[in-house]
Amino acid sequence: MASDGGGEEVSNKRVIFRDFVTGFPKESDMHVTSGTIKLKVPEGSNAVLLKNLYLSCDPSMRGRMSSFTEGRYIGSYIPGLPINGYGVAKVLDSGHPNFKKGDLVWGRIDWEEYSLNPAPEALFKIQHTDVPLSYYTGILGMPGMTAYAGFYEICSPKKGENVFISAASGAVGQLVGQFAKLLGCYVVGSAGSKDKVDLLKEKFGFDEAFNYNEEPDLAAVLKRYFPEGIDIYFENVGGKMLDAVLLNMRVHCRIAACGMISQYNLEKHAGVHNLANVILRQARIEGFLAPSYFHKHPQLLELVLPYIREGKITYVEDITEGIESGPSALVGLFRGRNFGKQVVVVARE
Amino acid sequence: MASDGGGEEVSNKRVIFRDFVTGFPKESDMHVTSGTIKLKVPEGSNAVLLKNLYLSCDPSMRGRMSSFTEGRYIGSYIPGLPINGYGVAKVLDSGHPNFKKGDLVWGRIDWEEYSLNPAPEALFKIQHTDVPLSYYTGILGMPGMTAYAGFYEICSPKKGENVFISAASGAVGQLVGQFAKLLGCYVVGSAGSKDKVDLLKEKFGFDEAFNYNEEPDLAAVLKRYFPEGIDIYFENVGGKMLDAVLLNMRVHCRIAACGMISQYNLEKHAGVHNLANVILRQARIEGFLAPSYFHKHPQLLELVLPYIREGKITYVEDITEGIESGPSALVGLFRGRNFGKQVVVVARE
Repeated sequence: MASDGGGEEVSNKRVIFRDFVTGFPKESDMHVTSGTIKLKVPEGSNAVLLKNLYLSCDPSMRGRMSSFTEGRYIGSYIPGLPINGYGVAKVLDSGHPNFKKGDLVWGRIDWEEYSLNPAPEALFKIQHTDVPLSYYTGILGMPGMTAYAGFYEICSPKKGENVFISAASGAVGQLVGQFAKLLGCYVVGSAGSKDKVDLLKEKFGFDEAFNYNEEPDLAAVLKRYFPEGIDIYFENVGGKMLDAVLLNMRVHCRIAACGMISQYNLEKHAGVHNLANVILRQARIEGFLAPSYFHKHPQLLELVLPYIREGKITYVEDITEGIESGPSALVGLFRGRNFGKQVVVVARE
Repeated sequence: MASDGGGEEVSNKRVIFRDFVTGFPKESDMHVTSGTIKLKVPEGSNAVLLKNLYLSCDPSMRGRMSSFTEGRYIGSYIPGLPINGYGVAKVLDSGHPNFKKGDLVWGRIDWEEYSLNPAPEALFKIQHTDVPLSYYTGILGMPGMTAYAGFYEICSPKKGENVFISAASGAVGQLVGQFAKLLGCYVVGSAGSKDKVDLLKEKFGFDEAFNYNEEPDLAAVLKRYFPEGIDIYFENVGGKMLDAVLLNMRVHCRIAACGMISQYNLEKHAGVHNLANVILRQARIEGFLAPSYFHKHPQLLELVLPYIREGKITYVEDITEGIESGPSALVGLFRGRNFGKQVVVVARE
């Protein structure tokens, strides 16, 4: 409950966005400042006061670092203010009837240690705490919804189909691959290092995996792994990989366009040359955004929580400690330095 | 009925495919020869003997002139043999129980005056002859099915939506535009000459139309005609036009990928750079082939025949006379020389 004024004042580190970015983001595009915050919601306010625990580094954050906002579903970051993204937080104080002290939530939060959130209706309350809390930045949060919507809703997968996933060891890809294996599909993934390839095969049970950095002819490697063609492509990278997939589609191939991370830091996106094959193969490329499917979050939990508890799905996180490590972690994501889902721990409870 | 041997022997002109083509096809890639044929089905055969009436020039015939067949749903033409395509013919003699002398059919036929067709099951019998027979190469044939499937089945159009059609005065485009107008959509088309633009607006009732040859900035012209964005794009051309559409999509835009005629004669297809917008706009690009929808031909007739009879749909054909004009007509299609659906008349009955 909001009390009448007062409340402890504490220091509050924040990751401030310096200015709009072209090309690859650098750590110096952000800086960490320290201010103070009162751990109380102002009298009469509907806000909640959050202690932020886990911050999620997501590819879509790159777009928000550019000044160009037209066509985007969410605005650019504002120079001089903290960046924001998905995260997990604990309610320290609440002026909102739906939230009380001690509640755990996930949703969009600012990159700072503590936040006064004036619109907590947009946050999801966390009900299940027998799994790692950080999972709500990944398998149980936005990336989980992305994998769920892209695979089940967009691709309508069937047992025995041939599934290819790019950026397959990332926050979304690792999950799509495991969904596909649990359904009885043949699953191949691409990633950017030998360690990641080993992870795909040994930890996530992919049938095959390859390091795209070591393959000069992507179309040929896909032909080798998919002699009969690809039924489902879960697209996370764009550019050359997409072009190679377009040459290796089975009839009625479905491409869930989730992300094109290889393109986000280019001034002009690479040309894709083989789109006419979409006609010949009667294929479908469909873009989607996880927030449009957030109303299905209960279905995600219903599907995934038992798998996690029974050890049928594993989820690999790359966790860095301290909000000061945030800029480096986020920048590393665009260089492929993360090994699994990139998470920044601000505090553990 | 097949009789015991005999039958008049007549001369039979044929359009022979000379050799595989790279780049734009030329008239000299084909040549017209004259042989003879007996106007009788051989004893004991299931074949039909056809007198060919109307031949259809379709963009998809370009692919069959290349040697590369992988990924295509139908094989290349064979050097030394006649090319083939959709057409209308009359049965002169039949060894098949489903066909009798005098029946009119449409389907795939060889480019020659008379054909012995050994697999007439693949032909469609023509039941309605109160409309021009040539329409069975267009509005009532394969292009009609293409427009029907692409617009209604792939795009799920709704009244009031914003529809853009490229190559809009062609065999398929003119029909999609009229379907969209009848449904109450806002419809804009692009074409390659002032005359075609006038045709779109004055004959087919498009709300707006433009000549792409006079527009250096296609994205800007689309933005002008679609300030709120495009809901449905009926894609016939590919390349730059597709890239411009990708910058002007409304959320949940659907792109029916029907053809990419601007690309068919290029050695390497142009790069498409704006595909990432498919994600941001949650859009869908879906390729399709009319033959997969031929089982719905009765629905096309049920929809379109009344419109034709009531004058609510018009269909413009560019008709050339004589099988000798075939190569020139076909080559002209790839230069955009046709004005409406390109048809070659071999004989009128």
